[in-house]
Amino acid sequence: MKVTFLGTGAGLPSKNRNVTSIVLDLLQENNTMWMFDCGEATQHQILHTTIKPRKIERIFITHLHGDHIFGLPGLLSSRSFQGGEKPITIYGPTGIRKFIETTILLSESKLSYPINIIEIDEGIIFENEQFIVTARKLDHGVESFGFRIDEKDTIGPLLVDKLKADGIDPGPVYQLFKKEEYVELQSGTIVRSADYIGESKKGKSVAIFGDTRPKTELITFLSKIDLLVHEATFAQNQEQLALDYFHSTTEQVASIAAKANVKKLILTHISSRFQADDIDQLVAEAKEHFQNTTIAYDFYSYQL
Amino acid sequence: MKVTFLGTGAGLPSKNRNVTSIVLDLLQENNTMWMFDCGEATQHQILHTTIKPRKIERIFITHLHGDHIFGLPGLLSSRSFQGGEKPITIYGPTGIRKFIETTILLSESKLSYPINIIEIDEGIIFENEQFIVTARKLDHGVESFGFRIDEKDTIGPLLVDKLKADGIDPGPVYQLFKKEEYVELQSGTIVRSADYIGESKKGKSVAIFGDTRPKTELITFLSKIDLLVHEATFAQNQEQLALDYFHSTTEQVASIAAKANVKKLILTHISSRFQADDIDQLVAEAKEHFQNTTIAYDFYSYQL
Ligand SMILES: [Zn+2]
Ligand SMILES: [Zn+2]
Repeated sequence: MKVTFLGTGAGLPSKNRNVTSIVLDLLQENNTMWMFDCGEATQHQILHTTIKPRKIERIFITHLHGDHIFGLPGLLSSRSFQGGEKPITIYGPTGIRKFIETTILLSESKLSYPINIIEIDEGIIFENEQFIVTARKLDHGVESFGFRIDEKDTIGPLLVDKLKADGIDPGPVYQLFKKEEYVELQSGTIVRSADYIGESKKGKSVAIFGDTRPKTELITFLSKIDLLVHEATFAQNQEQLALDYFHSTTEQVASIAAKANVKKLILTHISSRFQADDIDQLVAEAKEHFQNTTIAYDFYSYQL
Repeated sequence: MKVTFLGTGAGLPSKNRNVTSIVLDLLQENNTMWMFDCGEATQHQILHTTIKPRKIERIFITHLHGDHIFGLPGLLSSRSFQGGEKPITIYGPTGIRKFIETTILLSESKLSYPINIIEIDEGIIFENEQFIVTARKLDHGVESFGFRIDEKDTIGPLLVDKLKADGIDPGPVYQLFKKEEYVELQSGTIVRSADYIGESKKGKSVAIFGDTRPKTELITFLSKIDLLVHEATFAQNQEQLALDYFHSTTEQVASIAAKANVKKLILTHISSRFQADDIDQLVAEAKEHFQNTTIAYDFYSYQL
């Protein structure tokens, strides 16, 4: 699992930071990629990476502000131009369907693959054998969502050597060990499956939040996750601005990360007012509250 | 009058060429700028120029294909962010209103200036004291327009020295010379205004065409203009492809330029399949038919 930041700016693009888009690389886990938000020129950013638009099969939109969605029509068109055939599913607040359908229809973009659009509410919005994605509402004036992505724990390997040592020979019976709690052998003996299964692998957990004021009600939702990606549009001393514009400060987010006891915090959605020196200051003030903090920059990747 | 190419690619962006947008710089003539088409990331391209979005007061859209309009919502939002207050007028085919209104409304972009949207047909679509813009339909499968921009001739300066030499002294009478064909002096003598007005300055003329098959019916429309900007998505030997996809080849366009006797031809909307060597070949084959041809590249400017 790898998180790549394609755009880390706030509101409008600058020379250094494009508007928001994040890719969750699940190639190893599931040969797929997911995208979170798609600001204008996200497809241009992708040109400088190894990401293939046709590999992106799910796009999660946190909210409908332009700096988070204006790259969608172009990305969807280019994915088709480049021969994408796999269906894509797009999750987002009410209105995302009209946005996509209107732009694709009016531009007469002919797509080579089906689009499935799901207008979401709070709760589990996606689940398969490997992953579960939960959405929670944030506090941004307009409807804005935070997503928590949980990789399910994977059951450990069958301990074949131990089975053989105990005289349980290979055969159809082996298949029962991962299915049943107890297994009855041909001899009539009943054994506990868990005794013949190796250690299970704990799934990773990531939360990617849209623009929001600090939302302390969600500390439990974030409890002990491996990575929290959160906006920090303002500095510690700009609390009033953050409040007025429905954004967060570095300090507010770092405090939430500390209380939720997350493993890693990455701050993004950085205003272009902040120059290189300011960024050092922003990191420093966040680290006072939560040590393991990084401020993202365009093309920054974090491996989980 | 200066034409700047912000994007010169076809269909989808590449590392070298962004999708279509052209700026007509009328700062000297009228302290304003006009834009023709606005593909995705046009506002990003502008970051690398001295162009100010708030200076852009008219945008002409040739057709609604994504590579010509997906940058509009972002440009309009950023123009507001950057404190633009002057109204903007957008001209384009039917559907442009719905595209702009839907994207601006759904993204809750609050604009600091009024937008005036005009869905156009053939004919004169804009005229003021200095300029006249005429639209003609092209041949691109979807409705696509070519625009001809004519700067009006400006009347020459009043020849004050000659007036004085002829005994006509400065006074309110001087104002009549640019208004009336004949002027009656206090003495009762009637003089011809033209004898006291210097040489008039011929206005420039430019045509900027949207995507199209070669349209020979428009040779008269293009007659003797100073500059023709035309797409050349395909090479000379790809005539069938050009026909199938409603585009033009280098040779077809150069022939039109020659027949219309234009002063200069700039080719744009160049496919990313063409590499540097191919571009030399494209220029060469165009020049065989029309010598004064240039193939545009991103940020190329031409002064008229
Ligand atoms: Zn934002
Ligand atoms: Zn085009």
